[in-house]
This record gives sequence, C-alpha cells and structure tokens, in this order.
Amino acid sequence: MIKVIDGGVCAAKGFTAGGIHAGIRKNKAKKDLALIVSEKKANTAAVYTTNLVKGAPLIVTKNNISDGFAQAIICNSGNANTCNLGGEEIAEKMCQLTAETLGIDAKDVVVASTGVIGQPLDIEPIEKSMQSLKDSLGNNSTECNRAIMTTDTVEKQAAVEFTVGQKVCHLGGIAKGSGMIHPDMATMLVFITTDAAVSSEMLQKALSSDIQSTFNMVSVDGDTSTNDMVVVMANGMAENAEITAEGEDFSEFMKALNSVTVSLCRMIAGDGEGATKLLECKVSAAADEKTAKTVAKSVICSSLFKAAMFGADANWGRVLCAIGYSKADVDVNKIDVSFSSAKGELAVCKNGRGIDFSEEKAKEILLEKEITVNIVLNSGEAEATAWGCDLTYDYVKINGDYRT
Amino acid sequence: MIKVIDGGVCAAKGFTAGGIHAGIRKNKAKKDLALIVSEKKANTAAVYTTNLVKGAPLIVTKNNISDGFAQAIICNSGNANTCNLGGEEIAEKMCQLTAETLGIDAKDVVVASTGVIGQPLDIEPIEKSMQSLKDSLGNNSTECNRAIMTTDTVEKQAAVEFTVGQKVCHLGGIAKGSGMIHPDMATMLVFITTDAAVSSEMLQKALSSDIQSTFNMVSVDGDTSTNDMVVVMANGMAENAEITAEGEDFSEFMKALNSVTVSLCRMIAGDGEGATKLLECKVSAAADEKTAKTVAKSVICSSLFKAAMFGADANWGRVLCAIGYSKADVDVNKIDVSFSSAKGELAVCKNGRGIDFSEEKAKEILLEKEITVNIVLNSGEAEATAWGCDLTYDYVKINGDYRT
Repeated sequence: MIKVIDGGVCAAKGFTAGGIHAGIRKNKAKKDLALIVSEKKANTAAVYTTNLVKGAPLIVTKNNISDGFAQAIICNSGNANTCNLGGEEIAEKMCQLTAETLGIDAKDVVVASTGVIGQPLDIEPIEKSMQSLKDSLGNNSTECNRAIMTTDTVEKQAAVEFTVGQKVCHLGGIAKGSGMIHPDMATMLVFITTDAAVSSEMLQKALSSDIQSTFNMVSVDGDTSTNDMVVVMANGMAENAEITAEGEDFSEFMKALNSVTVSLCRMIAGDGEGATKLLECKVSAAADEKTAKTVAKSVICSSLFKAAMFGADANWGRVLCAIGYSKADVDVNKIDVSFSSAKGELAVCKNGRGIDFSEEKAKEILLEKEITVNIVLNSGEAEATAWGCDLTYDYVKINGDYRT
Repeated sequence: MIKVIDGGVCAAKGFTAGGIHAGIRKNKAKKDLALIVSEKKANTAAVYTTNLVKGAPLIVTKNNISDGFAQAIICNSGNANTCNLGGEEIAEKMCQLTAETLGIDAKDVVVASTGVIGQPLDIEPIEKSMQSLKDSLGNNSTECNRAIMTTDTVEKQAAVEFTVGQKVCHLGGIAKGSGMIHPDMATMLVFITTDAAVSSEMLQKALSSDIQSTFNMVSVDGDTSTNDMVVVMANGMAENAEITAEGEDFSEFMKALNSVTVSLCRMIAGDGEGATKLLECKVSAAADEKTAKTVAKSVICSSLFKAAMFGADANWGRVLCAIGYSKADVDVNKIDVSFSSAKGELAVCKNGRGIDFSEEKAKEILLEKEITVNIVLNSGEAEATAWGCDLTYDYVKINGDYRT
C-alpha cells in the first residue's frame, strides 16, 4: 500500500531542509541557496545529464559519491557554474563550506547548480550565508524547493508512505524544471530522500531503471541541460532490513519511488516554460517497448503538435506526421488516435485515416488543462507514456531574453 | 561563370508556368493550383520526404517518373491529400486531367499537394479549373510560386545562367516553406527546371548529392513533413552535349544547381513560420564533415538558441549546450564561438569558456535580420553550414490554430 503524504524531502525520518536568499541572484525576494541534510550518512545514488558539456558541480558530485555515501546536498540557483574558469574549484569550495558548517566530511556533500551558463560563480555570497543557511534547516521542503527554482512557477514536491518488511518507510522528493527539458537522461534537478534502508548498489539500480520510464520520458523543449542530476539518499532510519537484492522488498521500494517520480514528471511537464497545459502521450498495443517509447517521445516533442494543443486544435495529422518521422517501425495503416481529458474521449483517426468527429466536442476536450493523446498501434502489447506541455507565446517570451 | 538571373522556373528555355485560384481554398485572393510545363519531355529526378507517412501524391509521382521522364508538374495548396481515403485515386486523377488538358501522357505528370493532412481533397474545383490553369501558362514563375505557398509570406525563386560545353544554359527554381521544415531529406516543395541536357541518372546523382548540404541542412521547427519533394526537370533545349557522366560539364552543372538551391534554402529559412531573422550556423575546423553537420544542425534546431536570437540575446551557453547534446564527438574545451552579421563579428567563447565581450556590441550585431553563429571546433578541416530561423510569438500563433 502506497499512501500519498506531505513533506517532500522532509517526509522521511532524519532529513531536514532549508533555503535562503544568499545574494547569488539580484532579486532579494528569490531564494537562491538550498540545503538538504540527513542525520546519518546515507546510501546515495545519482544519474546525470548525457550532455557532453557537463557542469562543474556534476564532476565534483560524481567524485564525492563514488563511494556510495552522502549526508548533505547543497544547491544554488541563478548561476549554473558551467563553461567558466575555475568552476570545479568553486564547486569543491561549496562542499567544503557545507562540511565545515555541518561538521561532516566534504566528500559526503552533493553539490548542484542551475542558472545561466558561462559566467563565473562568486563564492563570496555563499560563504557569507552558510550560517543562515544552516539556521534555515527544519521541516522546510517548500523553502528548499523554492531556492532551486529558476523559471518554475510552482513548487514541485511529492512524498509517499509505504511498507517494507512491516516497517513503515517514507520517500519524498523535490524537483526543479522548467526549460531545457528533454528525454535524454535525468533532464532536471531532482533530489529524493528516503528513510528506507537500501544498499547503494540497489539504490542505483532502482534509480537507473526508474528514470527510463519517468524522467527520460519528459520533454519541454528538446534541449538537454548541462547541469541535470537526480540524486537519491537513503538513510535507513526506518529500520527495515536493508534491501540488498531484488525481491519483494525491492519491488515495494521501486513502486514507492515510481509513484513519486511520476508525480514529479507530471509537475515538471505541466509547469514547462510558458506552458498552459500538461500533455500526456499514451502509446499502446506497440510491438515492443522501444517502439512505444520512440513514438510517445516523438509526438510529445513535436513543436507543431504542441502549438496545436495550445490552440485547442484537434489537428491529429500532426500526430501522425510525428509518428511518421520518429524512425519507429510502425504500420501507419493500423494507427488509431484519440484525444481525452476530464471532458471525455474523442476518436479522430482510425487505421491511419481521418474519421468524422465533432469539432465542438474536440474543443471542449482540448480546452482542459490536462490533455492525453492516445495512440493505439494495433501491433502488439507494449506501451509507454511521455509527458510534455504546449508551446506558447510565453515560452518564447521567457527564452527570448533570459539573461537580462 | 554563374550569373544570377530572373525568371524562376521559367528562366530555362521551353518552360512555362502558371497559377490560379481553383477553389480548393476558401479565400479567393489566394491562388491554390500551380502548373509547370516543358515544351519537350524532360529527364527528371526527384527526392522525397523520409517520413514514414507519405502523401498520396508522392506515391503517384514516384511511380510516374520511375522511367526518368516528365513533362509537367501540377501542384495544389490548401490540402495535403494525405491520410485520407482514396488519396491516390485523386492524385492519379489530377495527372489524368493535366495530361488531357495539355495533350501529354498522364505518366509524364508530377503531382504534389500541400496543406492540411487528413481531409479528403475534392477533385471538382480542380477539374473545373483545368482550362483556366492552362490559360495561365506563360513566363509566370511568380504566379506559379504563389499558388504553391501555404504559410509562406514571400515568394521564393532563384535562377542562374551558366555555360556547359560553350552552350549557354539556364537553371531556376521555386520553393514553398515554411513550417514542418527539418533536415531529414528534402523537407519542402521545390521545383527546379533547366534547359541543360543531363541524363536522368546524372540528374538524380546531382540532386541526391546536392541536397545533403542544402535542403537537408535547413530546419524551421524540427518537424519533417509528409508531402515534401524536390523535383528537377532537364529538357535539353540548351543543346549542350548531354551530360552522361562525371567530368567538367557535370561539375559546372552541379555548381549552377547548388547556387540555386542554396539561395532557396536561405529564403526558406528566412521565411520560416513566424521568423524575424535568418540564422546561419557555420561550423569549421571539424574532424570530419559528419561532425560538422551534426553540430550545425543541433544548434540551428535548438528552441532555446532560436528564442535567444529572437530576443537578440548573446546567450552562447545555449550554443555550447546544443553542441554538447548533439552526440557529435567533439572536444568541448577546444570550441570557439562568435556571432556575426552585417554589423561585424564578436567573439563570445574561447576554448569552451566564456570571454568578456561588449553586450552593447552584441545587441548591435544580433538586432540585424541575418545572423551567423560561427563555431570553430579546432580539431580538423571539415566544415558545414545549416540554416534556420528564430522562434517567435508568431510561430506559436500561426500553428496554434492552423486548421481554422
């Protein structure tokens, strides 16, 4: 039984979080420095962007958690600390300051940065703020979440309660979108904490497997960031027998993890830059999973489809077009397409050909905030879901002048 | 010597063209039916979209020119004649009507359609208009061009005069953009005519080779259309010795063809849906051509880069980011980036790191209508150019409600 609860990254025992305005950003109303701390050293796993250009914090974090342990996460927004001179030294320094302030080992600190690429990150405001950052720690997942946000308009938190070996466990996370999001690894910042006892190896296995059908299936704009990572920390304070192999306990843990990551994916997609709608593309009856995923991602990434959804225009030809150029091996003449939302479902294409439908009903369905396009390939039993958002004037506005 | 001349598809001897409003579109001010005719049967070559969903006209055209000959091209706008019932029969009927009206063989007709996908194309308005379509024939490349336009805002024509074996030859073309344009084969409609004598085989060879560095390097929105084709007709009326193999004459012909196709590419990119700027990405000093092309295309396709150019924002971090996720094998620490336009050139990144530059100068350069981003990989001697446009409010507007 998985129960949705509040608390985000503080839902699990032994974790506290905080966030402050340190002065990295000019706008004092915007928090820019976040901290998550575990009472005990935690088994830790992570996945990183596949972009060849990698932010300095990723290199430092990868090195720090190579032993499978971490105890704190420090993350700033406002500057990506990437493609600049001395970036790694700055990232190391952030770990060192965190370690000194908390009385832990610098090698047990995860460091992350998000913001503009190519400008030096000034360590001074961070150094000066370490004590007040520490003072902000508490049951403050929301404050922490706000401090890692960039163009996000809403917080993104999720948490669940579940049971492993009769012990009640908790798992929760926070995420930051909302541009440069593309299905090519963990394309955003996500921090997840759990009090379940899971070995570092199994934690990595769970995460690497889960992202294939969650964070890797989210696209906002087709651009894969340089600074993305998903980190999971498991401090074992729920006192279950440590999960060290596959089996029932691992399955329960995977379900809990998936519940939180799917929630975060939907939040990231729905709050994509400039988005007015969450788009979900469900592909079913595919010959295999790879085909289903390829089709789902191609449709969710199509600028033309995204713009049509913004206009609540049932232009299903663009769905077929995007399937056609996806490189997936599908029989176009077997494809059925329908649109659905809280207002019902409407079939628009059968066997690759248009069918008569009520434009009025289509508008009613597509004017909702959450739209699903259902694609049935009629060629097998595999399925996949991808998440994205519509393409709007505001996406252009936000990105036309991001730096100034 | 290649000389730029006027005349579009009518620049070459023996070709006439015309365009009318037949009634496929509701708007009477918009022409929707185009015709190009050669006095003599012409050697003909074509390339088609790689989209798995192929418009009915492509299937019919492919069949008709399988013998290497054609004498006329008929093309309608307003309806793509794709993903509907009986599309091929309608396309065949268009060829038959053209043949009857002109007194030629239906197998010598190229047929093309562009517009909305998934709706039946009514043959009646076309049938009724064949005589007036024939009557519109003349030195009317512009009228013909207008009839194949969809969301294009300007005509796209180019022509050159050149010499093959001391005979003066002509080659000219018209193109239609302007959305669903992506480097994955001939992603638009382009009709090219020449009076040079070139065998069908060598014509196909020239075209298939040329598009690799021209039409396949243009991206407006990452969507590959279902109906695209580039057709070249060579009627031999310049009376040069027919080009049947590689050599000096073939090289001259290739240069003339490339001059026209590059011009059309720049026009298509610059008139991309909603575009305010033509973007050119020049990659040089690459280890090999594939790398250069991959990098150029990744940058020109990045929504974030495109939006930054709309805002005249020198956000070069997005250029590096797009190189990083391109999958090209490059050394990030060797990359230099500069922006240039009629107002000069400005270096913004050296060895993968940001360098100080004047934001004022950057704005001056980026406020121009034609912007080049120069990427030097410092790893070899290969180079490539890709063309695209900025991402604007109007792209969203045009595509948010295309059907209604």
